[in-house]
Order: sequence, then structure tokens, then C-alpha cells
Amino acid sequence: MKNEEQTGVAKSSGKQDFSVAAPRGFLTGTASCGLKKSGEDLAIVFSEYPAVAAAVFTTNLVQAAPVVLSKAHLKAGVHRVFVVNSGCANACTGEPGMEDARQTARIVAEYFHCDEREVLVASTGVIGVRLDMNKLVSGLRTATAALSRENGRQVAEAIMTTDTRPKRAAKTIRLGGKRVTIAGVAKGAGMIHPNMATMLSLVTTDAAISKAALQRALNRAVNLSFNRVTIDGDTSTNDTLAVFANGAAGNEKITDTRHPDFEPFLGALTDVCRDLAIQVARDGEGARKLIVVRVRQAPSEKDAHRIAETIATSPLVKTAIAGQDANWGRILAAAGRSGVRFDVGKVNIRIGNLPVARQGRGLLFDEAKALEILRRDEVVITVDLNQGEAEVTEWTCDLTEDYIRINADYRS
Amino acid sequence: MKNEEQTGVAKSSGKQDFSVAAPRGFLTGTASCGLKKSGEDLAIVFSEYPAVAAAVFTTNLVQAAPVVLSKAHLKAGVHRVFVVNSGCANACTGEPGMEDARQTARIVAEYFHCDEREVLVASTGVIGVRLDMNKLVSGLRTATAALSRENGRQVAEAIMTTDTRPKRAAKTIRLGGKRVTIAGVAKGAGMIHPNMATMLSLVTTDAAISKAALQRALNRAVNLSFNRVTIDGDTSTNDTLAVFANGAAGNEKITDTRHPDFEPFLGALTDVCRDLAIQVARDGEGARKLIVVRVRQAPSEKDAHRIAETIATSPLVKTAIAGQDANWGRILAAAGRSGVRFDVGKVNIRIGNLPVARQGRGLLFDEAKALEILRRDEVVITVDLNQGEAEVTEWTCDLTEDYIRINADYRS
Repeated sequence: MKNEEQTGVAKSSGKQDFSVAAPRGFLTGTASCGLKKSGEDLAIVFSEYPAVAAAVFTTNLVQAAPVVLSKAHLKAGVHRVFVVNSGCANACTGEPGMEDARQTARIVAEYFHCDEREVLVASTGVIGVRLDMNKLVSGLRTATAALSRENGRQVAEAIMTTDTRPKRAAKTIRLGGKRVTIAGVAKGAGMIHPNMATMLSLVTTDAAISKAALQRALNRAVNLSFNRVTIDGDTSTNDTLAVFANGAAGNEKITDTRHPDFEPFLGALTDVCRDLAIQVARDGEGARKLIVVRVRQAPSEKDAHRIAETIATSPLVKTAIAGQDANWGRILAAAGRSGVRFDVGKVNIRIGNLPVARQGRGLLFDEAKALEILRRDEVVITVDLNQGEAEVTEWTCDLTEDYIRINADYRS
Repeated sequence: MKNEEQTGVAKSSGKQDFSVAAPRGFLTGTASCGLKKSGEDLAIVFSEYPAVAAAVFTTNLVQAAPVVLSKAHLKAGVHRVFVVNSGCANACTGEPGMEDARQTARIVAEYFHCDEREVLVASTGVIGVRLDMNKLVSGLRTATAALSRENGRQVAEAIMTTDTRPKRAAKTIRLGGKRVTIAGVAKGAGMIHPNMATMLSLVTTDAAISKAALQRALNRAVNLSFNRVTIDGDTSTNDTLAVFANGAAGNEKITDTRHPDFEPFLGALTDVCRDLAIQVARDGEGARKLIVVRVRQAPSEKDAHRIAETIATSPLVKTAIAGQDANWGRILAAAGRSGVRFDVGKVNIRIGNLPVARQGRGLLFDEAKALEILRRDEVVITVDLNQGEAEVTEWTCDLTEDYIRINADYRS
């Protein structure tokens, strides 16, 4: 993994097509069916070939109807269609909401002449409100009619809620001489916390891989990407990350984790997921800055992760960065309440490349230099515990007045 | 316990003197020594009689010098003086900071002709900055010279940082025919989370009670008050809650928890602590509303507490209340990520007295009625799990743009 990919958005070559229809054999269609106040709010992604699917879902006990349904459908061997709407989460809607989700899958299955279990569904938006099925059904028709290889980029727009920009990532690698492409879209913004899949995301790939190996790869990729991002500590009822792999690249099938192509595939999948996750953090509700929290020389990865996550979740740290204030005391105090036992007297802290605390105590530092670092739209906080070898990086964003404004009147 | 005391600030009679010098045998002095930009920033509370002390401190691994010192001093059998400054936390200041705390205790001990271990010290303010000992020493002299029974109310002002108003509470009860008074001050505002003592607070009482019984009473009172309040999930390096009991009331000494006066004393101490804790919640940084979260009919108190705390900590719930938005979906979603296993399909939710969800699903409710409830400066959220007997109440405040403004430039 290159270093810049660990701390920022992966740079991709100009030639990369950032569309979920970039991998071979995928078609997409979108529609504006009126579930959102304006703009496209429905997307269908169809694989021309039977695909294997893997997914991770919210760990929230309260699970939206589409999550419940997709979990059940995921047990099928192959999948064809991923359908997602924004504007309404179809969560806390009881059995009628389940029936709405089922009806969506049934209609789509009819259009595509496949089994309804080959359809995965996802929804995002307001909780506790029924889907307007008249609008949705009409949108399904429009999106299906619009199906093509060309408008894959629009999928990223159709799944947005409070996102300010679409999130796409893609990577092409060679496996055994064949070009394999992995592409993804994500929506994020609020209710983001590292508790498994933490938003809505769809990844498509033309790799040939077994369903079991794909799930293993996804779990590992998520642990190094979406599970290392936090916006506000809340987890949603609807979080879903699904991957479809249709084998159209013609590479030798990756049958299990010992296959020589597994690791290169995992690396590329992780890159795409990390790229999307960082975009999600950077576009956190109200965010002006990406905050990269690196905890190093920790006794264990688990300890490093707990400390990094506590710092990344601390409202006091996040408001300080929003205020361009090098308040390292809040960083150390957050580490101190993480539950990890460590020797505070060994801890060094840097903001950007500026040392601000050494051996648990403040340093005199150049405030002008600190301000210069904190003015940038990406701030790296490095906490060196000096008591081990483990290292973890987490991403979050600053906490601004706009977060409050966005969330105080979301329903209205 | 009366019902209004569980959900709001206890009403006290007009005759109650809300000063920590109200209990017999306590004198106070304050000073403005320039540690804060303006106003009084130092307070000394002196007991004319040897008092027994009990205290709880922050659970943060990073502990400020005064916390470390006071924990050591607490082992002494009797105490005479509590000295507290605002404006500087004396945290993350290493051995020099420890020496500053020790010097403070030594100087005060000399003034009052007592052992330095009979002095407890506390500090609140910016982390990582040394105390200006010249200013502090001069303030100690002024405050000691000002010592009287009359200006006890000023102690509440002297410990304020970002608090918008002083916090005082008091209660007088009769134990075996003797009038016993318990009085307290607190400062709160930010970095408040139920992890033991969650701010600075001093409680004085003229009760005669053993040191061991006082500590037992304090632990139980804190669990029903300060440990049920959260502002932002951060815990400070300096949190301290100390109680001094000097026996001047002349009641029969409460020797242990089986003494007949223990429960009445505990009840009154809990009332004072709860009153202070609710004032802290109501005056959370940027707060416009007190939020009371009641979780009822839960399988166990532990489960109820976890669910209530998760709801009370959720930024999405707190911004919704700030925006006067009856977004019960966020309340249910927060409960769902609390880690407690429960049947979502049995849960009813009310905002004020308005049912908004039943059996895990949204109800059609009168939005005008909801707005009327949410406009008030105190909003009660009731989550009925309908799967047990346990009930817990927690207090928090809404999350507004002002929280961000206050914390984005706290150091500057």
C-alpha cells in the first residue's frame, strides 16, 4: 500500500473510468421518482451475467426492511440486480415495510426475468415513513428503461441524501494477464460510525471469484476502510455495502483465499473501499476538513484502534480542529478515556509535522506554524505511544456549526 | 423521591440558603487572581472543625496534577480546606505541575495551621498549561483574607469556565431532632460524561458521619445523579467531586450504612447531587433545552442505563431536539446500537406526553402538538421497552451551533 493511500484519497490515473458500469457486463439506470425533494433518487445496477455477491450490513439492532430482506436474499448463490433508493429509509415500518421491500424485489425480478432472491435492495433517507410505492414502481420502470453502460456515474448521485458531492472510486489491475476492474459508489454524510458497513455502498467488479472468497475479501477490506471512518458515532438502521462480481474479466477464478490472485484482488478492493471511505469522511455533514488520526507504536492493533477511534469520535477534538486550534490536551484526554491502559508519560503528539506534546507534556510550539497546518483541508494527528509496534489510521472530519444546522431540521 | 425531582430540578423552599457556607462551621473566600480573563477564579472553603471527606475523581487515564494530589491526600483521616481554581487545569504538566499543586496545598496548610494532607485541591480550565503560581499565590492570600460565612454564594461563580450561570443546591433535613444541611456547588458545561465524577463539585455538610459511611453515601448518590448526565461524551482529566462533613450539626454520628439516619442522609445528598447534575445538563455548552431520557420496563437496570445513555449521547437525537423535530426514528436507532438485545417490535416512544411510535413503528401524530412540546425548555423522551421492570432516567441537553462555537475557539 502506498503511503498517500493510507492518509488521503488514493490518486488514480486520469484514464480510469469511475463508474460502476466500468467493469464489464454491468448496466445501470437511474430515475427521479419524487422520493427526494429533487434530483435522482433511484438506481438499478444490473449484471448481464450471473454474479456472486458479498455484503456487510449495519450492526444496529434496529434494521430497516431492505436490510432484513437483502440479508435473506444474500443466501442465494447468484445475483443479478442491486436496486437502491434515497429519500426514504423504509426503516421502522413493520410488516407493511417488509412487504414494500419484497414487492420492489419482485417487480425488478420480473423486469429482469430472474428469481427475486437474485435482487438485493437498499434504501436510505428518513426513518419511520412508508415508501411511496406508486412513485417507486414508476421509478423502477423508468430506471429499467434507461438501462445502459453509459450513465453509470449517475448512480453516485442517485444515492445521495445530505452528501454534498457524489463518491466514486475505481481501480483496474491485471490478474493472470486479464484486466480486472473494481468500481464503487458510496453515500455517507451522517450516522457514520465504524460498526461494520457504515453507509450505503455498491462495488461492482468483473473479477471471477467464488462467493466465499469474495465475502472474505470484503470483510478484510471493510476492516481497513469503512470500519476506520467515523463522523458522529451514530450508526444507521440501513447501512449496506454490497459487492457484485460477475466474472466477465475472464481471469482464472479466485476459488479461495490461498489462490495467488486473492491478495492482489484484496489489495485493489481495499484501495477502492478506502478511497470511498475517505471521501465519506471528507464529506461528513458540515465538514470542512478531513482529519487523519494515526496512532503508532501501540501495544496492540486493538489498543491502537480504540485510541484512534476515541480521538476521532471526540466532539472536543473535532470542534478544536474546526476552530484551527492546536488543542493537543483534548487529544491526549480522549486517548486517556479510551479504556486502553498506557503510560501517558511516553506519549508524543504531532499535528501535521509539528510536535506539540512530548512524553505526555505540552511543548512550546510556533502557533503561526500550527495555524498554517490547521488551515489546510486535511489535518493529520499523530499520536506516538512509544510502547509497542502496532499502528492504526482512522479518518474523520471536523465538527462544525453546519453539522448542527443540517441535522436540526433534517425531517422538515 | 418526588417525581418532579426525577425529571427536573428539585424545587426548594424560598428560605433555603444556597451557599456552601450554609452548613454550620464552613467559611469561604474567593479571589480574582487573573487566571481567567475576567471574574473570580479562586475559591477556598474552610471547615472550622476537622471534617471527614469523601470524593470521586475522573476515570480518565490522563489525570491532572490536582487530581493525583487530592487522591493521595484523601487518605488522611480529616480534612480542613478545599481550594479550587478555574482558568487553568494544571493537566499534562508533568512533575513541575505536581510541584505546583503541592505548593498550593503547602501554602494553604500554612495559612490554616493544618497538615498539607488536610487540603484538597482542584483545578479546571485549559489543559497543558502551567499554573501561573505568582498569580495563584497572591490569590490564595486574598481569598484567605476574605474568609467569611457571608460570601459562600460566590464560590459557585469562582469555579465557572464556560458555564453561563452558577450552580448551587442545598437541602436541610432533620436527623434525630437536629437540623442537618447539605449544600453544593458545581461547574460543568463541556467534557461531561457519566464516567464517575464528571465535573467539579464541592458539597459541604454539617452532618456527623464517619468517613467510610460518607464515601459509601457519595458513591450511591453519584450513581443516581452525575453518572446519569452526559453533555458530549468526553470525560475530563480533572473531574472531582468532594464532600466535606464536619459534624457541627451535632446529630448522632452516622457510623455506617446500617445506622437509621444513613438512608435519610443519603436521600438528601442524592437530592443535592441530582439538583446540581441537572443544572449541569441544562447549562451544557450551547444548550437551549434540558433533555430528560426515561427508559422504562427494561429487562435490567444495566440495560436501561445503556439504552438511555446511548440516546442521551447521540448527536443526531440531540440536534433533532435542538431543531424541535420529533424525529423518533433517531431515538429508536440510538437504542438499537446501544448493544442491548431487545425486541424492537415491543417498543413504544413518547415525546412529552405525545405517543410517536408504538411497537417499534411510527404513529401518525399531530405535528403541531409535537412542536408545542419541543418548543419548551425541557423535553422528556420516554422509551417503554415493555419487556421488564427496570427504569432509568438520564439527563442531557440539546446540541446546538453554539456548542461548536464555544469549543472551536476555547483556547483563543
